[in-house]
Amino acid sequence: MSAFLRFTPLIQSLPATVPFVGPEAIERQRGRRIAARIGANESGFGPAGSVLVAIETAASETWKYADPENHDLKHALAAHLGISAANIAIGEGIDGLLGQIVRLVIEPGAPVVTSFGGYPTFNYHVAGHGGRLVATPYVDDREDLEGLLAAVKRENAPLVYFANPDNPMGSWWPAERVVEFAEALPETTLLILDEAYCETAPAGTPPSIESLIDKPNVIRTRTFSKAYGLAGSRVGYALATPGTAQAFDKIRNHFGMNRIGVAAAIAALADQDYLKEVLVRISTSRERIAGIARANGLVPLPSATNFVAVDCGRDAAYARAIVDRLMSDHGIFIRMPGVAPLNRCIRISTGPEGEMDLLAAALPDVLKSLAAA
Amino acid sequence: MSAFLRFTPLIQSLPATVPFVGPEAIERQRGRRIAARIGANESGFGPAGSVLVAIETAASETWKYADPENHDLKHALAAHLGISAANIAIGEGIDGLLGQIVRLVIEPGAPVVTSFGGYPTFNYHVAGHGGRLVATPYVDDREDLEGLLAAVKRENAPLVYFANPDNPMGSWWPAERVVEFAEALPETTLLILDEAYCETAPAGTPPSIESLIDKPNVIRTRTFSKAYGLAGSRVGYALATPGTAQAFDKIRNHFGMNRIGVAAAIAALADQDYLKEVLVRISTSRERIAGIARANGLVPLPSATNFVAVDCGRDAAYARAIVDRLMSDHGIFIRMPGVAPLNRCIRISTGPEGEMDLLAAALPDVLKSLAAA
Repeated sequence: MSAFLRFTPLIQSLPATVPFVGPEAIERQRGRRIAARIGANESGFGPAGSVLVAIETAASETWKYADPENHDLKHALAAHLGISAANIAIGEGIDGLLGQIVRLVIEPGAPVVTSFGGYPTFNYHVAGHGGRLVATPYVDDREDLEGLLAAVKRENAPLVYFANPDNPMGSWWPAERVVEFAEALPETTLLILDEAYCETAPAGTPPSIESLIDKPNVIRTRTFSKAYGLAGSRVGYALATPGTAQAFDKIRNHFGMNRIGVAAAIAALADQDYLKEVLVRISTSRERIAGIARANGLVPLPSATNFVAVDCGRDAAYARAIVDRLMSDHGIFIRMPGVAPLNRCIRISTGPEGEMDLLAAALPDVLKSLAAA
Repeated sequence: MSAFLRFTPLIQSLPATVPFVGPEAIERQRGRRIAARIGANESGFGPAGSVLVAIETAASETWKYADPENHDLKHALAAHLGISAANIAIGEGIDGLLGQIVRLVIEPGAPVVTSFGGYPTFNYHVAGHGGRLVATPYVDDREDLEGLLAAVKRENAPLVYFANPDNPMGSWWPAERVVEFAEALPETTLLILDEAYCETAPAGTPPSIESLIDKPNVIRTRTFSKAYGLAGSRVGYALATPGTAQAFDKIRNHFGMNRIGVAAAIAALADQDYLKEVLVRISTSRERIAGIARANGLVPLPSATNFVAVDCGRDAAYARAIVDRLMSDHGIFIRMPGVAPLNRCIRISTGPEGEMDLLAAALPDVLKSLAAA
């Protein structure tokens, strides 16, 4: 295939990968519509009704670029969190922010510490900037804070990624352990504390805002994609010191935010009552998934997120077969972790009861057909 | 201000600039609401009614990530343009695509050729990747194709930017000159042919798709932000050979597109009747702006875009004073080119008659007050 001859050597070395195959692509590949979309940790509960109203209102202004300073959203978040707007950077989802952070810190060859089996999109961005991944194994299905710290020190790494609660396992550390970890890091190591799932975690999981907001080497990333039900709006935010937050302004696409998406995020933040309702539904759905797993002889792992990792008790091929059969035979879209030993599990997102019913009906059938094979 | 200590040397060298100050920021700075938003080359005519319906329909699906393959939009564009979907890359507006292209090609210190006074956001991305701008002066308010080519050859530049029609001057070259330019470039130089304003240009301005689609060293960038009236949706696209287009997949934020925005773009593309209507209104509005300029003793430049550059006949300070007074005294937001000799001009976007009326009423007042000062 004929391509331009002079892309940079780094670009030429990169594969044209997709960190995740999207559900629409799976539908096209399999020639089958998805009946239960419970694989991407989206929220099938959707956003608040008030958000849909805000979207409709904002629609007539979509001929205007969004405010490149994101003033209103920053100030709404600042008031909500009790910090200054200067502590906040806004981006096109956490994925977008992760790409920017890697670019801010990583030169080709620089070591980047993460967990082996952690968020693939972060790894994608590290590869895209020529960074060298140093991956520490999970211990007991949790990210290993001591292992991450040891790797940082051994490698003199400028960047470490830690998700709390964790994806893909749903596990978590309490706030005090997270703060301890952050404080133990050298000031020349930037911690990305990815809190995409902080809303769904037990109280005492996310450190208080104050405990980390003055540390120039900590960036906390959060999103409207999960509990707030706005994955398609692409609005994430980063919390940091003003000096660290300002670095995003050096490289971000200032006019990159979608105007309707920002309006939706502001409305979602304002509707904390709806968020509370959804959190109950997510919690109930986690229990439902756990019950379905147990009823089928599988072991649900504890979860602080909007999904449940389910230990299928055998190898990756078995878990993969369950994922594949659920989709091929029943149109149920779920995912699974990418590496051993995590990939003995499947990962099921919480969702409306109707989709859980489909799962409950399909899983015994899939397991039976695999046992017979 | 306390910032992380170990950002890359390149990042540390960059200022926290904004390529453009947004209209909302201007409103906050001046403490005055904008009455006529005719400065950012948005389309005050808005998108089609059919697009607003599509947005409303898509709103209920905003809990889902957009398809990372952008399959439906790519195929709609492919059918519209008579090419393959493999010839197309989708991004968060042309701004987002420009950032990606620079990243694909430019290593620190590499020369990048553009026109002196050309699109500032492109220059911002070049600086952000450590590129070295080589800027060729406009000649007679047009980008100088011979000058650009000479600079490319002199510098052995891997990248050259050329907008046709041009922003900020509104000038243009006919298709045959553009093709001639592209063909004269070394195959080791990538041409960004920015066609943000191609829809509003006279017939014979954009080269045929076939004339350039097989050249691996040409990327044409287009957008739904201008004539289609969807600036806030952030949907741009690039046309290239499949090999060159695929390079975007190595670095882009695969889940970066807004789901509602993509749905809006697909609907906008489908409503070519509305586009035709809008093109008439843009053309009429250009004439109106030209008439207002002439009535005030100013000289409108010919325009192939959705804006008109107006020569105010004096220096940059005078043009700047007009821009400032229009906003401060009348709430009329316009912009002006950034460098001499272009900055003898002001730049006024086309828009609804009501906003033109405000301009017609305000401009004599502003010019009189400046004459008296």
